[in-house]
Amino acid sequence: MATIVVLGAGAMGSALCRPLVDSGWNVRLWGTWLDDHLLDEIEAGHPHPRTNVPLAPGVKLYRSNQLAEALDGVNVAVMAVASQGVPKVTELALGGISKADAMWLTSKGFSPDERGKIQLLPDAIRRIASQHAVTLPPIVAIAGPVKANECAAGLTTCTIFGCKDEAVAKRYAAMTTTDNYAIKATDDETGVEICAPMKNIYAIALGIADGLGEATGSPHHNLKAAAFAQAVKEMSFLGQRLGAEEATAYGLAGVGDLEVTGLSGRNKVYGTRIGKGQSAKDAFKEMERLEQTVEGYPAAGLAMKLVAQHGIDVTREMPLLAAVAGIIDASVKDPEVAVALAVRPLNS
Amino acid sequence: MATIVVLGAGAMGSALCRPLVDSGWNVRLWGTWLDDHLLDEIEAGHPHPRTNVPLAPGVKLYRSNQLAEALDGVNVAVMAVASQGVPKVTELALGGISKADAMWLTSKGFSPDERGKIQLLPDAIRRIASQHAVTLPPIVAIAGPVKANECAAGLTTCTIFGCKDEAVAKRYAAMTTTDNYAIKATDDETGVEICAPMKNIYAIALGIADGLGEATGSPHHNLKAAAFAQAVKEMSFLGQRLGAEEATAYGLAGVGDLEVTGLSGRNKVYGTRIGKGQSAKDAFKEMERLEQTVEGYPAAGLAMKLVAQHGIDVTREMPLLAAVAGIIDASVKDPEVAVALAVRPLNS
Repeated sequence: MATIVVLGAGAMGSALCRPLVDSGWNVRLWGTWLDDHLLDEIEAGHPHPRTNVPLAPGVKLYRSNQLAEALDGVNVAVMAVASQGVPKVTELALGGISKADAMWLTSKGFSPDERGKIQLLPDAIRRIASQHAVTLPPIVAIAGPVKANECAAGLTTCTIFGCKDEAVAKRYAAMTTTDNYAIKATDDETGVEICAPMKNIYAIALGIADGLGEATGSPHHNLKAAAFAQAVKEMSFLGQRLGAEEATAYGLAGVGDLEVTGLSGRNKVYGTRIGKGQSAKDAFKEMERLEQTVEGYPAAGLAMKLVAQHGIDVTREMPLLAAVAGIIDASVKDPEVAVALAVRPLNS
Repeated sequence: MATIVVLGAGAMGSALCRPLVDSGWNVRLWGTWLDDHLLDEIEAGHPHPRTNVPLAPGVKLYRSNQLAEALDGVNVAVMAVASQGVPKVTELALGGISKADAMWLTSKGFSPDERGKIQLLPDAIRRIASQHAVTLPPIVAIAGPVKANECAAGLTTCTIFGCKDEAVAKRYAAMTTTDNYAIKATDDETGVEICAPMKNIYAIALGIADGLGEATGSPHHNLKAAAFAQAVKEMSFLGQRLGAEEATAYGLAGVGDLEVTGLSGRNKVYGTRIGKGQSAKDAFKEMERLEQTVEGYPAAGLAMKLVAQHGIDVTREMPLLAAVAGIIDASVKDPEVAVALAVRPLNS
């Protein structure tokens, strides 16, 4: 029986334990120093506080001071902490990860290096390993339309495993598939990693359309749908410029994940507040007060930097990204006009 | 000033008058023999009964017995009747249409010819014209994420004009664009025509996911998102097999139109009923009783025929279409299982 450790006991890490247990892995779950209260609840037999679903049975829990034990002898280590925690946990876990057959990655985001250059998370992780002269096993990027609570509850979930070595992605996909958890394997690590944070940014635009509808009593579905199509186009464009396959954004990683994020989620809720008339800053403060992380908020600025690094004319090629970033940094005054202009198709 | 006549005074025909008037066309609206009550309301100064929005000012109305006058001297004739009415209205209007510079087409659907072979509407229209030895002007297929009431109200709407002669599509796009109505021009008539009826079928699957959520109290967003991605993949696949461009399904015509249809619309509502446990037949009867046309219901069977005509292995290549068709004809017993199986990604 293969052993896997999930690093990070938040919503996604704990949810992933469900298909891992169901597909026959020997599963360990390690909580960071921020996760003690989550493990307390689980150990007390309560549902996970973030998913409201009990942890899958048979998962062995490890506290933050038990990282070495948690990693000892595992076949796979899964990085599942919040993206800002990835560098630190990577450093702490490097020794154990280097001995595993693979590192899986559910954390998502853009990571600035020491000089402020924006990297995708797998590149950031490889950079950290290289700085410590450690050789990493293959990285499998996991993304797609996965709401953690539904995955944890065993509801039908389709996801995508992306590894530069496609055979590795396929092997783990075959090992981990269950009746309720289906996996598409791809070699397009880059495409998978780009779509995941970008969709959070675009979900803000979808939320703005919803908010305009709520504020006026007239749904703005045509605007939302045009924004959806524009978002997919921009994700595919950016992916291709960074070496990804065009098709990845058109599948589960792009279209699918944007759909699930646009149905609910905090980025969409944040956008809805803006569409209803709150300033981007006030809406963000309100979300912070409610302890609702809006990943698309910092991601928009980081994406603008990433796009600039690659010499992309963002106004022309990715106008919806530019609009959301402008709304967030208040350089754009009228969100409705900005989004409406950004989604207009060009004929040249 | 160019003159355009819209044939069909239903929701979409009357809604289209808004951007036509705004962009400076001289606009006529002809009502079929089924539209008298709609024209009565408009003439009485009331909002259009189907959109709850007043008709754009300056539109000249024509009754069903005034078809020749309505067509007299027009630059463009727009076919905007329900798809089952297209053959008859085409025959009646052929003389006038043949003298116009172009025929636009907002009607959407699959049309069986006399031998039961399924054709896309522009092909069906060209066949009818050819049978009457009439030469048609270029056809411009109009589709995309357009809810008629929002378009009629002048809310931001992005649409797509597809004509085999791309210069024609571009010319009319430039003539008709307004601040609130933006048009993507394409030469992919086939892609545009395939996505429009197919998205109605797939919206039933999205509705089933919503209905499962309502019935159980647990949203099935992961399932809905996976179905969305699978639907887009199948629309693109079918389009390519029929000569369309792969990208059309990934833009406004596919992704965009499916998004708006999945947000609301009668096909989605029909699917929701099924997801909540009604049989496909009973749900359809109920929708009929409420005078709610479910276009995806007949379209599913016609699409299965179209797919068979082209030698496509539907179970393998378009499993979600097969699932919806099977749910509708009751050959599939458990809609949840059928949709869940159909959206599982393949790794071969």
